[in-house]
Amino acid sequence: MPAVSHKALQMPASPIRKLVPFADAAKKRGTKIYHLNIGQPDIETPKSFLDAVKTADIKVLEYSHSAGNESYRKKLSGYYAGYNIQIDASDIIITCGGSEAIEIAMMTCFNAGDEIIIPEPFYANYNGFSKAADVIVKPIRSSIESGFALPPISDFEKLITPKTKGIMICNPGNPTGYLYSKAELEALRDLVKKYDLFLLSDEVYREFCYDGKEYVSVMHLSGIENNVVLLDSISKRYSACGARIGAMISKNKEVMNAALKFAQARLSPPSYGQIGAEAALETPKSYFDGVIKEYIARRDYVIESLNKMQGVFCPKPSGAFYCIARLPIDNADTFCQWLLESFTHQGQTVMLAPATGFYSTPGAGLNEVRIAYILKIEDLKGAMLCLEEALKVYPGRTEA
Amino acid sequence: MPAVSHKALQMPASPIRKLVPFADAAKKRGTKIYHLNIGQPDIETPKSFLDAVKTADIKVLEYSHSAGNESYRKKLSGYYAGYNIQIDASDIIITCGGSEAIEIAMMTCFNAGDEIIIPEPFYANYNGFSKAADVIVKPIRSSIESGFALPPISDFEKLITPKTKGIMICNPGNPTGYLYSKAELEALRDLVKKYDLFLLSDEVYREFCYDGKEYVSVMHLSGIENNVVLLDSISKRYSACGARIGAMISKNKEVMNAALKFAQARLSPPSYGQIGAEAALETPKSYFDGVIKEYIARRDYVIESLNKMQGVFCPKPSGAFYCIARLPIDNADTFCQWLLESFTHQGQTVMLAPATGFYSTPGAGLNEVRIAYILKIEDLKGAMLCLEEALKVYPGRTEA
Repeated sequence: MPAVSHKALQMPASPIRKLVPFADAAKKRGTKIYHLNIGQPDIETPKSFLDAVKTADIKVLEYSHSAGNESYRKKLSGYYAGYNIQIDASDIIITCGGSEAIEIAMMTCFNAGDEIIIPEPFYANYNGFSKAADVIVKPIRSSIESGFALPPISDFEKLITPKTKGIMICNPGNPTGYLYSKAELEALRDLVKKYDLFLLSDEVYREFCYDGKEYVSVMHLSGIENNVVLLDSISKRYSACGARIGAMISKNKEVMNAALKFAQARLSPPSYGQIGAEAALETPKSYFDGVIKEYIARRDYVIESLNKMQGVFCPKPSGAFYCIARLPIDNADTFCQWLLESFTHQGQTVMLAPATGFYSTPGAGLNEVRIAYILKIEDLKGAMLCLEEALKVYPGRTEA
Repeated sequence: MPAVSHKALQMPASPIRKLVPFADAAKKRGTKIYHLNIGQPDIETPKSFLDAVKTADIKVLEYSHSAGNESYRKKLSGYYAGYNIQIDASDIIITCGGSEAIEIAMMTCFNAGDEIIIPEPFYANYNGFSKAADVIVKPIRSSIESGFALPPISDFEKLITPKTKGIMICNPGNPTGYLYSKAELEALRDLVKKYDLFLLSDEVYREFCYDGKEYVSVMHLSGIENNVVLLDSISKRYSACGARIGAMISKNKEVMNAALKFAQARLSPPSYGQIGAEAALETPKSYFDGVIKEYIARRDYVIESLNKMQGVFCPKPSGAFYCIARLPIDNADTFCQWLLESFTHQGQTVMLAPATGFYSTPGAGLNEVRIAYILKIEDLKGAMLCLEEALKVYPGRTEA
């Protein structure tokens, strides 16, 4: 029997996936589980998206252009113009979700053995895509005390070697919800310029910025146009995760020409998703106003509840729909499994994501969990009550 | 400005893509082009597929399972049972087109620097996926005289080195249309067993087998269950290329567990495509009977027309909807460009794929073209007339 590849053996399995069998077993026992462990919003996909797919007049479901339908890319450049990001249709490749945008960008920009610096905690799948592209992740710690602000530039510089080829950020951040300030991004710009690095920025949560804080894109930074690659997705924007529509965007023509060759090898992005996404560009502002109002209410409720619990600390994020909470526990993986395996409160429990999966540094995040506030307030109430009661009786509780 | 990766620079650009600007220019001049250059059928997608998408009751377009919807995978195993291929839902990962199945299979099975043997001419994008996975393709020549039958096993053995980790085939073949016989596949089985290699088989054209010839899958070969990986797609089966739904299938649990980690990193395959594909499993046999009758008529017309032309030879394929013809020309790339740039007959011309792009050996296929017989007979008549007239006046014509 031939052996699988070294890469396959080293591919990280998601720490959340390890919990799934325990969640399934709990459900079988009749336990109600509040799922705060995933980034699948319960918000309805805009009607314009769903109706466009329903009414599309298709006889032959053909390949689209490898870079995506031109009509969609043209209108999409208008969407970005609304965020003061000036790009042409030719600066965009439509991808199969944000995932493929990351994958193609990594293969386009980095050689095997190249190093990229990523502030941690970061979206766990960056590890998988880095492994697939044989890129080495050099994590740089951001701290829960600062709300996961950008680490000092001097800390970045300590990590830079001749192998360093890029920096990757997520803004607003998953899993932290942190929104980088203009000053932070300008500091990054100077660093990127000084060492001539690629700056990959995952900005799929741009619609979700709160408290009047300004969303600053890497595309707004002047002087590093050829260094910047924007990674995007409609999954969260339109609550359309299953559409599998994302985008890789850059003003660097060499990057885009090379990326297009990877895109051509896989032929085209999904046609239905593109039809829905193009129509969804007409989504009225009122849809987002409603969604954002809902997320702010959920965030405020969750953050307040968490910080009221004995020994719990959770900074208040300004974007996305996640937060990272520090709990008085010995081990987040053990705790999250215990919640599913050994705990119920009034027949209910809560599923959380251990933060360990979002750190690349071994042992980091052991007493932290990521909470996605993607349920209705009444369900969040049940979930927070479960967590509070669980922390009172968890055998691995630590004093804090 | 940071440089793109070596891999990106080395990614092959499709030889057909190079022709696109010339086709666009010809269209601008008012020339009618018969497109025999691509594998995009004109056959209508089954109504069951399109209706299922139209009537799907979706409020939130969610992620599916990373391996694809279980309901779809369960029914899909029934589809394979209809071909005497016995697999469970757990042996299947639904992918974003056959493309992603190839990509994940290569990353799962092969290390950087591993060698795979592929009979040439082969589907050009195998080169791209091999490059992306840092796998080295060792082409083995099949000959037009034999209709592109499997090369002798002794020729395979000459190519086997300690680095050889797999063999990849396409059956029925793109671009050759060749259908491997049971004897050929059993010879491959013995070879695979002897050297403990992976056998990847792209069988996306299984519905298109003609003249009563038997389709034999690598999944039918006993004794190499752990070596075999089946790569599949619904693109051609249901003329649904834009759905981006394929599958990677193996009885090797270690392979499937590893592949699932790559699948989890990219979250899920497209939801709409899965809905359509699941419904399309109910497509009545009459749909395929009609499609196959149409393709046989097209094939017969094209092959007969080609072999009537002075100096042209084209073996009659038994599957898929392609053929490779040998033409009395100096250079297929030049000829195909000339057809678009400098030739018209009654305001019309034909776009063909130079076979050079389907060979990995430099200089091979210089006097061959791939013809996809994916147009209606009346259009194929116009196309064949153009080709015949073009060959009479092409400046690079050779005697044959």
